[in-house]
Amino acid sequence: MTITPPALSVFESLESEVRSYCRGWPAVFDRAQGARITDEDGHSYLDFFAGAGSLNYGHNNPVLKRALLDYIERDGITHGLDMATTAKRAFLETFQNVILRPRDLPYKVMFPGPTGTNAVEAALKLARKVKGRESIVSFTNAFHGMSLGSLAVTGNAFKRAGAGIPLVHGTPMPFDNYLDGRVPDFLWFERLLEDQGSGLNKPAAVIVETVQGEGGINVARPEWLRALADLCRRRDMLLIVDDIQMGCGRTGAFFSFEEAGIVPDIVTLSKSISGYGLPMSLCLFKGELDVWEPGEHNGTFRGNNPAFVTATAALEAYWADGGQMEKHTLARGEQIEQALLALCTEHSRLGASYRGRGLVWGLEFADPARASEVCARAFELGLLLETSGPKSEVVKLLPSLTITHEELDEGLRSLARAVAATV
Amino acid sequence: MTITPPALSVFESLESEVRSYCRGWPAVFDRAQGARITDEDGHSYLDFFAGAGSLNYGHNNPVLKRALLDYIERDGITHGLDMATTAKRAFLETFQNVILRPRDLPYKVMFPGPTGTNAVEAALKLARKVKGRESIVSFTNAFHGMSLGSLAVTGNAFKRAGAGIPLVHGTPMPFDNYLDGRVPDFLWFERLLEDQGSGLNKPAAVIVETVQGEGGINVARPEWLRALADLCRRRDMLLIVDDIQMGCGRTGAFFSFEEAGIVPDIVTLSKSISGYGLPMSLCLFKGELDVWEPGEHNGTFRGNNPAFVTATAALEAYWADGGQMEKHTLARGEQIEQALLALCTEHSRLGASYRGRGLVWGLEFADPARASEVCARAFELGLLLETSGPKSEVVKLLPSLTITHEELDEGLRSLARAVAATV
Amino acid sequence: MTITPPALSVFESLESEVRSYCRGWPAVFDRAQGARITDEDGHSYLDFFAGAGSLNYGHNNPVLKRALLDYIERDGITHGLDMATTAKRAFLETFQNVILRPRDLPYKVMFPGPTGTNAVEAALKLARKVKGRESIVSFTNAFHGMSLGSLAVTGNAFKRAGAGIPLVHGTPMPFDNYLDGRVPDFLWFERLLEDQGSGLNKPAAVIVETVQGEGGINVARPEWLRALADLCRRRDMLLIVDDIQMGCGRTGAFFSFEEAGIVPDIVTLSKSISGYGLPMSLCLFKGELDVWEPGEHNGTFRGNNPAFVTATAALEAYWADGGQMEKHTLARGEQIEQALLALCTEHSRLGASYRGRGLVWGLEFADPARASEVCARAFELGLLLETSGPKSEVVKLLPSLTITHEELDEGLRSLARAVAATV
Amino acid sequence: MTITPPALSVFESLESEVRSYCRGWPAVFDRAQGARITDEDGHSYLDFFAGAGSLNYGHNNPVLKRALLDYIERDGITHGLDMATTAKRAFLETFQNVILRPRDLPYKVMFPGPTGTNAVEAALKLARKVKGRESIVSFTNAFHGMSLGSLAVTGNAFKRAGAGIPLVHGTPMPFDNYLDGRVPDFLWFERLLEDQGSGLNKPAAVIVETVQGEGGINVARPEWLRALADLCRRRDMLLIVDDIQMGCGRTGAFFSFEEAGIVPDIVTLSKSISGYGLPMSLCLFKGELDVWEPGEHNGTFRGNNPAFVTATAALEAYWADGGQMEKHTLARGEQIEQALLALCTEHSRLGASYRGRGLVWGLEFADPARASEVCARAFELGLLLETSGPKSEVVKLLPSLTITHEELDEGLRSLARAVAATV
Repeated sequence: MTITPPALSVFESLESEVRSYCRGWPAVFDRAQGARITDEDGHSYLDFFAGAGSLNYGHNNPVLKRALLDYIERDGITHGLDMATTAKRAFLETFQNVILRPRDLPYKVMFPGPTGTNAVEAALKLARKVKGRESIVSFTNAFHGMSLGSLAVTGNAFKRAGAGIPLVHGTPMPFDNYLDGRVPDFLWFERLLEDQGSGLNKPAAVIVETVQGEGGINVARPEWLRALADLCRRRDMLLIVDDIQMGCGRTGAFFSFEEAGIVPDIVTLSKSISGYGLPMSLCLFKGELDVWEPGEHNGTFRGNNPAFVTATAALEAYWADGGQMEKHTLARGEQIEQALLALCTEHSRLGASYRGRGLVWGLEFADPARASEVCARAFELGLLLETSGPKSEVVKLLPSLTITHEELDEGLRSLARAVAATV
Repeated sequence: MTITPPALSVFESLESEVRSYCRGWPAVFDRAQGARITDEDGHSYLDFFAGAGSLNYGHNNPVLKRALLDYIERDGITHGLDMATTAKRAFLETFQNVILRPRDLPYKVMFPGPTGTNAVEAALKLARKVKGRESIVSFTNAFHGMSLGSLAVTGNAFKRAGAGIPLVHGTPMPFDNYLDGRVPDFLWFERLLEDQGSGLNKPAAVIVETVQGEGGINVARPEWLRALADLCRRRDMLLIVDDIQMGCGRTGAFFSFEEAGIVPDIVTLSKSISGYGLPMSLCLFKGELDVWEPGEHNGTFRGNNPAFVTATAALEAYWADGGQMEKHTLARGEQIEQALLALCTEHSRLGASYRGRGLVWGLEFADPARASEVCARAFELGLLLETSGPKSEVVKLLPSLTITHEELDEGLRSLARAVAATV
Repeated sequence: MTITPPALSVFESLESEVRSYCRGWPAVFDRAQGARITDEDGHSYLDFFAGAGSLNYGHNNPVLKRALLDYIERDGITHGLDMATTAKRAFLETFQNVILRPRDLPYKVMFPGPTGTNAVEAALKLARKVKGRESIVSFTNAFHGMSLGSLAVTGNAFKRAGAGIPLVHGTPMPFDNYLDGRVPDFLWFERLLEDQGSGLNKPAAVIVETVQGEGGINVARPEWLRALADLCRRRDMLLIVDDIQMGCGRTGAFFSFEEAGIVPDIVTLSKSISGYGLPMSLCLFKGELDVWEPGEHNGTFRGNNPAFVTATAALEAYWADGGQMEKHTLARGEQIEQALLALCTEHSRLGASYRGRGLVWGLEFADPARASEVCARAFELGLLLETSGPKSEVVKLLPSLTITHEELDEGLRSLARAVAATV
Repeated sequence: MTITPPALSVFESLESEVRSYCRGWPAVFDRAQGARITDEDGHSYLDFFAGAGSLNYGHNNPVLKRALLDYIERDGITHGLDMATTAKRAFLETFQNVILRPRDLPYKVMFPGPTGTNAVEAALKLARKVKGRESIVSFTNAFHGMSLGSLAVTGNAFKRAGAGIPLVHGTPMPFDNYLDGRVPDFLWFERLLEDQGSGLNKPAAVIVETVQGEGGINVARPEWLRALADLCRRRDMLLIVDDIQMGCGRTGAFFSFEEAGIVPDIVTLSKSISGYGLPMSLCLFKGELDVWEPGEHNGTFRGNNPAFVTATAALEAYWADGGQMEKHTLARGEQIEQALLALCTEHSRLGASYRGRGLVWGLEFADPARASEVCARAFELGLLLETSGPKSEVVKLLPSLTITHEELDEGLRSLARAVAATV
């Protein structure tokens, strides 16, 4: 396929220099369906990025699309703040019946705003209010968002520097395997907590991703998560799982923490919760933590009703029938794993390694720069792939969960060609 | 009209206590068109709230609806991060041609995320980066959002307390007429700036609303805004106008600061920019301030393409033809003003007063509690009205800009009845 | 008198660039007595600076000196932490009998460390603990010290910048007459406090100097202080009077706030409390505020026993006999006032003005640079004088309280000559 | 010896509840000489506390006393701010000749105020200014002082809570052997520094005590200190050694870091620098770091000239002759070590252990409460001993360096009796 550089003029002349993805993917995209996205020149790309995890059910999923069109056509409420609406009720009831009740999860549901960072900000506010403390523990290479509350618990130095103020009230602890197994899990963290002279401001909460998507596809082991949950319980800290990128089935089960058998105190969801790529986020918390005063947190777009409609449709279509979705995801995951194994074996001299869970995988090379090169070559081959990690050193595989065996196979072959092209 | 209390059970049992509007308006809304919204029992309400200013063109505006349905039907890109898309290009070109160019505004456009607080966070980050200072000056009774960066420059003590950490790096200054004209404008602020011993941390920027919507419909005079802009220029501070609630024609002109003839350094837009109540926000800034590095600020839903589509349609339908929209808004504004004058005259013993600009008006009584009572009575009469101000002491009139003379008249008569019912 | 530049070599080669007074007064001082200080070349200077207010009883006051020598000779405890000692007991009893009881002041006494900033840090800690709030209100051009807690409530931008971190948790309010009488006292401050939307973090306390010594000899009127005390009482804020420079008789009465008839909640003392220039400070507070846990604040040199000895001797010698000291101070103050009046009248074309109370006076010229010039000329004439104010624009007269009529007259004549020499 | 409870009335009625030492040692002390201190009833105590390390040369050392009396008698300058004085010059020259030059140390000398926390505040300010960063790394169980800057890098949770504001801009790292040797030194710290995604705000400096006196007599190994110095150099952080308690010969050499062969960028000294228990502190730093502006940091009592006199006398008497002082200290240290070994052996069932360097030693028992009990019994036996550590679980031995073999032996026997009495 030959790519003709598109006319990017208004993007270059009018849009801010802050734009980023459009630089790595120099195309003007026009339409999309399932795992494929098409630019205005008719070039089709296989999408292994899925809106950074916002399109678990593929682009413009037809089941959700039908529900959305019907809703808009019949003049259903679009903008609803936190007014009660029929669309919101349907979502709440479905979320309760399909997600919470079968998993015996004791959560209240809060609509904190349309995007992930709103959910994280709400989670941190609530934890601080409940515990009466300011400090939050986060983990190395965490990513939780770009507003100041979320950014303070995000690891990336470049993003942090953008804050323009010193980011305080947070302390990083080592994520699972951060020190290559040379240190017992939580040895340092627990010692700080038990020692009255340690200098650690006692945390209100710990915030964690079960798999760090932006941080380099770092996968926490279930036993590490269980030990963390236990530490939080013993040391009177709330456990917040930020499931914005890894929730909604990305790792197999609906919540990424289910495999570990833990029940976090607070959970954030966004990205794929609406299912259709529409802005929506949730903050879930145990009922006894619901100490909010009415209106103590709010936001103009916390009631995005079209998103409630597609979210409801997605839950009904994909999660009401028991474990089909999870099974499918894990099967596709194995398909990726085998392909990555083959790829790393073939290119053993590149010092390549891989890791992942469900349908989120990372591929790393001895030379950190190779990841960006691979993604650039993949784009030329019609495959959308992004890097992740503090030095953009990891190729990140994040296809939609509804991708077929054939599509996935096609993409993995393109990836193999892209890697080969960098040798 | 008799209102039967709806079955709110899932809202009460599952949704967090943080919910607020649904408490004052105990109905389950189902559909809406223009200035009217209908609940599931078929009761119709005239909407003088317009999604807190997000529905300037009315609910489910048919022109925008058509464009939206077409886009969804043809599988246009829904979720786009900051990839280049045809929908985004159309929006950028239209925004440039219809809004920026005719007004000779030298702005670059940034998509900071889907909601207002994302735009404010981005504006503050940028100002701090450009000036290399942490401090921001805001105004008494300002409202800029609920994430920690925005909340730090918001006045409301109840909202601020929710932060759970001390909110610092901001200093409040008196908004126009805050001290009842007893103090020359900016006397205190400028003295602090010029005095090397004042103890004020030198601000990177000043953030201001031209009309404080949440703060009680406080209207800044054009000459006050001009003096502020002049002060910022002389004292090397950036001027940020938060036009999230007052922009997009709410006060008449597209930008609320146009009347004053100033050109802020940074402008935030959200709420009605998509026109259809879909989550979208913009941060505009002078070209020379565009010092962002690629990806230094980001967000999953900063490329909400359906919102770009409706935004483009709204700009073309309502702003491409010169000043029709503004003329209409100002005419409706006069209609409100006359009704409020009559109402205050009739109920002079209630110590009522009013203020406003364009189609945003506030009605205040000697007894602060009366405002909530009026809104409750109005709801019973089929009119949606909200309060504003630090003590919820102001009845806020915020109808859609496309409201007809007759609809407005009907609502104003309901308001008059509601007031009368509280006497 | 001709001054030969002394050999400053070790000061220049070894001492840090941070040194300052030695630059304006290029002499190596060797010994001192009363109001006179002598350099190693035998040049004698009349001292109108008195150790920045630490030498109210003159250099090496013979009464105190005798007590000090006796104590040292008999091997009295020198370093005592907060152990009970006979010297400390004598001080406490004398302070109670001579100072607190006759004035009916309900204070507990804390020894927070050897210098003023220790007392301010302790006062702020205590206020925050009592009220459970972080924020402190200070005044424009305040000076409270150089450690981070004190510096955050200090106005000077140059000193603040030295902190190296953003100084937060403090908000400046206008000192008396800051806005030249154009604004009613406390209009702005009280409005911020009463308005739930003002954005002011509710303060734990207000810290104030009755006369701002470093800030430019700004004198608060008694009625302003009374209104401030009243505001604090009504708005549930503690009132801290920092009497480090103005206490110990500098303004006439022992405490500078006595004239206003107020009883602050917390008072800081240092500088002249030991009487002999030995490091010592006190923090006084109402008994009901004594919520300290043992050792919650401490410091190695909080029990400087030789200072207790000279402090006791000073109280007995100068304050036990009723109002002699105050009378003397006020008389000398009038002598200064008359001289400054004459000087300003004579040099009316210099736009000179003066202000002061007791034995602290400031002389300001239309040209801010003239103050430094006057001090430089005064040094050549054998008179030590310093500037004050944010631009060093005020000549500060701060002689010892024990200065004689003749000495004062001599100094004032030198000052007049110095001023004349700058014309 | 029988102790009659003294009349503590004025201490109990007038002095703040914050007092602490006087509670554990219920006596009113009157005079002292060398290693002995006497109360007003004539009871004599052997002092194993030495003013928390401020009396390395014993109480009222006769050599220093003579110099001090002479100086006071001849009316030498007492209070000097940072004016040049003959006493200060003598100190600077002596410090250069006796301390800096023989050790080839490239330091400038700053007089930051009279007490240790002033020196720490100045050191942190300077580091932040030089590096343009806010963050400081400190160590678990560090103690650096009680003003807000110093307290933020202090570990003790009780002391930190007294701040009344969240203490930020500091991050604790594990002190030597904090994790019982299970983790390679600096593994965690260096990983945080090298990882751009770690979330650690890049530190301006690291502040460390070579032996943590307040933190529990935790002794850093020379190789750990060298690795730390190397890490600072490689990672562009300044190394601050807080030698306030361990300097002036406490560990043998004049500076406690000499043994490790490192040259810190900044050093703080206080406590025993004046030698006589008079308030004085120093901040030393490499010449190229002397970026202070004149007066950027100051303090009323930074020129305590009587302290300069005794400091000069102490340097000449004890440090000018090469290594006599160090040899004596190390010999006495061995005497302590042998006694503690015997004691721990005898009372092996108490789970006792000891550690130390030079003349600072700690004795810990399996039961943390025993330490306080031992100190209480020791007081009854006429021996002043204090506890240290986050739970006051360590008996701290800190005799003056000039103690004789016999005095030390007497005290160690009292200690053994006190321990035995708790069994």
